[in-house]
Amino acid sequence: MTSATPATGPVPTPADKFTFGLWTVGWQGRDPFGEATRAPLDPVETVNRLAGMGAYGVTFHDDDLIPFGSSDAERDHHIKRFRAALDATGLTVPMATTNLFQHPVFKDGAFTANDRAVRRYALRKTIRNIDLAAELGAKVYVAWGGREGAESGAAKDVRVALDRMKEAFDLLGQYVTEQGYDLRFAVEPKPNEPRGDILLPTVGHALAFINSLERPEIVGVNPEVGHEQMAGLNFPHGIAQALWHGKLFHIDLNGQTGIKYDQDLRFGAGDLRAAFWLVDLLESAGYEGPRHFDFKPPRTEDYDGVWASAAGGMRNYLLLKERAAAFRADPEVQEALRASRLDELAQTTLGEGETLADLIADRSAFEDFDVDAQAARGMAFERLDQLAMEHLLGAR
Amino acid sequence: MTSATPATGPVPTPADKFTFGLWTVGWQGRDPFGEATRAPLDPVETVNRLAGMGAYGVTFHDDDLIPFGSSDAERDHHIKRFRAALDATGLTVPMATTNLFQHPVFKDGAFTANDRAVRRYALRKTIRNIDLAAELGAKVYVAWGGREGAESGAAKDVRVALDRMKEAFDLLGQYVTEQGYDLRFAVEPKPNEPRGDILLPTVGHALAFINSLERPEIVGVNPEVGHEQMAGLNFPHGIAQALWHGKLFHIDLNGQTGIKYDQDLRFGAGDLRAAFWLVDLLESAGYEGPRHFDFKPPRTEDYDGVWASAAGGMRNYLLLKERAAAFRADPEVQEALRASRLDELAQTTLGEGETLADLIADRSAFEDFDVDAQAARGMAFERLDQLAMEHLLGAR
Amino acid sequence: MTSATPATGPVPTPADKFTFGLWTVGWQGRDPFGEATRAPLDPVETVNRLAGMGAYGVTFHDDDLIPFGSSDAERDHHIKRFRAALDATGLTVPMATTNLFQHPVFKDGAFTANDRAVRRYALRKTIRNIDLAAELGAKVYVAWGGREGAESGAAKDVRVALDRMKEAFDLLGQYVTEQGYDLRFAVEPKPNEPRGDILLPTVGHALAFINSLERPEIVGVNPEVGHEQMAGLNFPHGIAQALWHGKLFHIDLNGQTGIKYDQDLRFGAGDLRAAFWLVDLLESAGYEGPRHFDFKPPRTEDYDGVWASAAGGMRNYLLLKERAAAFRADPEVQEALRASRLDELAQTTLGEGETLADLIADRSAFEDFDVDAQAARGMAFERLDQLAMEHLLGAR
Amino acid sequence: MTSATPATGPVPTPADKFTFGLWTVGWQGRDPFGEATRAPLDPVETVNRLAGMGAYGVTFHDDDLIPFGSSDAERDHHIKRFRAALDATGLTVPMATTNLFQHPVFKDGAFTANDRAVRRYALRKTIRNIDLAAELGAKVYVAWGGREGAESGAAKDVRVALDRMKEAFDLLGQYVTEQGYDLRFAVEPKPNEPRGDILLPTVGHALAFINSLERPEIVGVNPEVGHEQMAGLNFPHGIAQALWHGKLFHIDLNGQTGIKYDQDLRFGAGDLRAAFWLVDLLESAGYEGPRHFDFKPPRTEDYDGVWASAAGGMRNYLLLKERAAAFRADPEVQEALRASRLDELAQTTLGEGETLADLIADRSAFEDFDVDAQAARGMAFERLDQLAMEHLLGAR
Repeated sequence: MTSATPATGPVPTPADKFTFGLWTVGWQGRDPFGEATRAPLDPVETVNRLAGMGAYGVTFHDDDLIPFGSSDAERDHHIKRFRAALDATGLTVPMATTNLFQHPVFKDGAFTANDRAVRRYALRKTIRNIDLAAELGAKVYVAWGGREGAESGAAKDVRVALDRMKEAFDLLGQYVTEQGYDLRFAVEPKPNEPRGDILLPTVGHALAFINSLERPEIVGVNPEVGHEQMAGLNFPHGIAQALWHGKLFHIDLNGQTGIKYDQDLRFGAGDLRAAFWLVDLLESAGYEGPRHFDFKPPRTEDYDGVWASAAGGMRNYLLLKERAAAFRADPEVQEALRASRLDELAQTTLGEGETLADLIADRSAFEDFDVDAQAARGMAFERLDQLAMEHLLGAR
Repeated sequence: MTSATPATGPVPTPADKFTFGLWTVGWQGRDPFGEATRAPLDPVETVNRLAGMGAYGVTFHDDDLIPFGSSDAERDHHIKRFRAALDATGLTVPMATTNLFQHPVFKDGAFTANDRAVRRYALRKTIRNIDLAAELGAKVYVAWGGREGAESGAAKDVRVALDRMKEAFDLLGQYVTEQGYDLRFAVEPKPNEPRGDILLPTVGHALAFINSLERPEIVGVNPEVGHEQMAGLNFPHGIAQALWHGKLFHIDLNGQTGIKYDQDLRFGAGDLRAAFWLVDLLESAGYEGPRHFDFKPPRTEDYDGVWASAAGGMRNYLLLKERAAAFRADPEVQEALRASRLDELAQTTLGEGETLADLIADRSAFEDFDVDAQAARGMAFERLDQLAMEHLLGAR
Repeated sequence: MTSATPATGPVPTPADKFTFGLWTVGWQGRDPFGEATRAPLDPVETVNRLAGMGAYGVTFHDDDLIPFGSSDAERDHHIKRFRAALDATGLTVPMATTNLFQHPVFKDGAFTANDRAVRRYALRKTIRNIDLAAELGAKVYVAWGGREGAESGAAKDVRVALDRMKEAFDLLGQYVTEQGYDLRFAVEPKPNEPRGDILLPTVGHALAFINSLERPEIVGVNPEVGHEQMAGLNFPHGIAQALWHGKLFHIDLNGQTGIKYDQDLRFGAGDLRAAFWLVDLLESAGYEGPRHFDFKPPRTEDYDGVWASAAGGMRNYLLLKERAAAFRADPEVQEALRASRLDELAQTTLGEGETLADLIADRSAFEDFDVDAQAARGMAFERLDQLAMEHLLGAR
Repeated sequence: MTSATPATGPVPTPADKFTFGLWTVGWQGRDPFGEATRAPLDPVETVNRLAGMGAYGVTFHDDDLIPFGSSDAERDHHIKRFRAALDATGLTVPMATTNLFQHPVFKDGAFTANDRAVRRYALRKTIRNIDLAAELGAKVYVAWGGREGAESGAAKDVRVALDRMKEAFDLLGQYVTEQGYDLRFAVEPKPNEPRGDILLPTVGHALAFINSLERPEIVGVNPEVGHEQMAGLNFPHGIAQALWHGKLFHIDLNGQTGIKYDQDLRFGAGDLRAAFWLVDLLESAGYEGPRHFDFKPPRTEDYDGVWASAAGGMRNYLLLKERAAAFRADPEVQEALRASRLDELAQTTLGEGETLADLIADRSAFEDFDVDAQAARGMAFERLDQLAMEHLLGAR
């Protein structure tokens, strides 16, 4: 099968900073009700393929690269082959992370497992891979606490568990600081699955938690499209808040069709309009990190389908980027934004030099304010949104 | 404000069969937390406006046209003015319905209210408006049982309530039959809101119920985009099943951003990809009924925004229709559909002339079937879906 | 570890008709993000354990009992051991079903797979296990079409897929009829997972589909608590409608905490109030089928926890049954039901001997009806629901 | 109608700190699809009734007490009557808030409205009511930004809107500080409704935002049961995190049956198990603030039903408190908690005096750690949860 040849349009290059996890294209298709549908994929082949498709980098969990339980010699061998492929292709490793969920030892969590020995093991496993991440030049270390949670009410004392979570991040922060690694952490929130409820379930909860750490400055978030959408939240809104706090250290792009199990569709599939606003936001906010795809090519696909899926995600990002740029550049849009008073939102509520006392003394602000006249003004949002729709559809 | 002038593209005409409820553009913006933001809209103005925008028809609840509690003389007056506007513009009335939810008398339902007097009143109110609907030439009478439900477990004996629901539809079916009206009913399902749980919550439940009526042949469904999406269901799938049963008598087009309160956004807003597949299905299935918009222009809008919103819904339908047609006509798509074996799905599972006994005797079907070889074949769905995405984005 | 000793209260016996799938207590804990946490469980041990706990029966997928790919000799061996255990314990097999989802050959479905060879294989696999089910005395054959669905819009033509689904059920119906088996089918709906959207997503859609079959009388539904709740639907309402259509052939009891991935918690966990109303309904409707547990003991548990979980589900059913009976028997409840006019809901809307014409002529029903006086009457549902709550809490 | 007489059990007293909003029992039942079903309720009657039922306090939006647009003389009159009733009954006013959502002037928000004049008006309206709140002795001032949000992507620049939100809270913080009021703010998050998406959608997002304010120490959160459950989040988990940050300044108790429109059922209705764990948490954490009911008695009810609903919420809290206390006191539970190693979760991961370097050097933590032996240990959570269930059901 030949993959779909785009008739026209943008082609990915490393400058676009597209990155993929080894576990994404390498997902074999095992799901809760079915066995693997694809053979294992050699990380070296992944590196070569991604480089050939215009990607910028590759990311990994320790166990993606080095099978769990490998001897030190095996470990070295896997790393060596991987580095050789990276060197040969120029692909980078901007991020790495730890698998703290696959092995049954983590069935009750890792940093917040009730069993102290598991927590200690999880920290050591993480530290070991941080060393490798730093060695490979990663700048971000992602922490997805997928098993930190519970299915029942008394199984986890959440306040105590947050103490343990803080202890873990404080120790890891101490470690990278002491080692002098140029590495920041990015917490990846998720509301549920594989646990009934996961701690730090949304971008907001993670941002709040980070503020309580000893070194908040080196910890940010790694939001994933589908994870926030599993809670019915507006993803671009969450990203905007993360940016507002200066905490968008990394991002996971994929697709999800609403509140259900974690689908990990390719980017663009699922809520396309949210994807458009996301790209518009990332590009206009000057986000400079990787555009990282954390998706699972459906298990209906063979490897031709896997690579078509990977290519499709990059293609969709670039198409949406073009459309968002055209939207922002359209004079009719600019006029519509003014008609909707976005310019006025950008003004401070107090005037320049105005004090709170001045506001309180300003009768035009309250006593003499004509609420009904103000209320009668339309916001003109529907026209603005229709302009966006037509740019998205390539109809303008 | 001038509304957005489409740079290019399709313009609605009555041949497109776009219809609008009086209550849609006429929604004043009252919501659970806020007062009306718009003045009332005269139905005659609505008729004139819609006709000017290329619509085909207008629909109404009895109380939209004739305020609840009007005298007979007032009623006649309202109808007369409305007819005159219809006659002057050529706008049709393909559907009408009853308001069985606004007045507090319906707080526990209408056809399934615990109070028998309410049920009798609801039937009479419906019959009265059926007469008017028939007189105005409507072919479909919609029944949305928004108040038929409960917030608590013992408040409604559902089996008994379904008996009452059946009794109501059987009586109404008898009525239109005896009157010789050329009018069919369309049940509109909704899972919840304004009741905690509504009876006949999805297209499926309504289709099942219809089969138990005395005159199933004159009762079908009127699915609404947002209602099924409030249950997280795939709307095009539900429509496909309704078509499969020959029961898609009417349809309500709007937008919804996932599982939450009933948003009634303009068509296209919300899940755009589902909207694309819906238009693709309606057009390819030869659906000939009205494309009825049941939406609420957001209360942020003044009437300029209302009409921009109404125009946007029609425009989106037509743009999606163009893109769906281009998708189906694209030879690369046709090849991709074959690669995904859609042609094979269209073949019967038994061969021509083959019997069940033959299948059982066919060793190649089971004993000698190479499951692993079969399992290794990719379905090529990702490539196919990416082709659809690019047609949707106007990128092919 | 000793399992929790109930201080007081009901103890399960076979008369309670509790049944369990081999795959439930036998689930090894493999999930999308983690490996198995428990060793395999011998079906014979399951039979012995369940019998010892007071269960009535055991159910199975073909592959639960006979590993996929077993030779005929191995198959006979597995069946023989299982039968011996059944005979020794007196445990029954009231239901069986086919695994049409685990092997990668079913990655695009079984009865509606695009590949015709897969459809034929699925029918044969099903027929083979139907023979075994009949031989073991099963009266219900469940069909869960978990892989019948799609992740993307063009991948499945739903109308055509429903043709194939109907073809499959018609053939299976022909088979059991020709064989003279005393076996009825029960379709098990689910909205999504493992497919993005599954065909026949709710009880309603399945009921509607059944009406289009050649032998609707031998096909009913097997609703599962969590499946309907994954669509946010009221489970007792769905069961009530299934009963109303005479189609509740089987039921799957478990727990789910809202709209998310399929949790399969033990019965009672999740939405406890819905569980209470469900038991109230099943018991008062005289449902005589098995109370079948289709749950997954959380992967945090070892086998002590598995059996504690299984015991807990039965215990919860019996406790809820006691509370529902006390609720119905409480004179204050009976008075509250009358205050909420449940008795009036049970009266037909037309009086005895009354015709539609009589209703239309009855001025007291409409022209002279005092809507405002009627609207002012409270329904007294809050008091009724609080009574239910207090019975549930064991506080009355 | 007499309200349900509890057979036995706890009776509310002011020591329980139950409080009610004027707008809760005073809700007239207007919903998106229906008119009011109840006449207005005089705040003085509310005060008298609540006091008679054992409540501790009453809360209000400015417009609940003083109708929007009242003259200064009318305002004084309303306040005077209200104070007199408070004095006569001893009922307190521990909290007040501003209505920034009902009048159409707030259709695009208040503190983040695109229109600057609306933002200034909203601040002034808030300040005016803060003065009254302080005068009446309130200690908490709630801010629910229900209209701060958007239905479409370009309508709100979220980063800029958060700047405006911060400006507003900084000014309000300055105001109460300068006035010397003993008043803290509590931000009330909500994901959506009445806006398509609301800013600060969850407890987490609000906690994160607060950290960016000039006076974070006087701003906390006011989580509402149903609001978090509308995002599918575990409410007790969110409360635990708020407590962990020292930010649970107030709480809104009610009921919700999953992800759908905002139901505002009485406390206990909806997710009863979550309600149990919430009460267990609040009581064991020593939360000392009001137990504030923010609910809407269903519009099916007359005022008898309203008061039955209000009484039911208090009763449910007290019953759950009894059951939670019994659960914690049960020796079998205490043993089960140890079996689930909750005690081990409470130990720090590093030992006393242990350093990070020690952990890294500890071979027993990693190199010599027997992961498989550890993985085989069951967590015994099912037994623990079943014990909780049986306490909840009053069966132990």
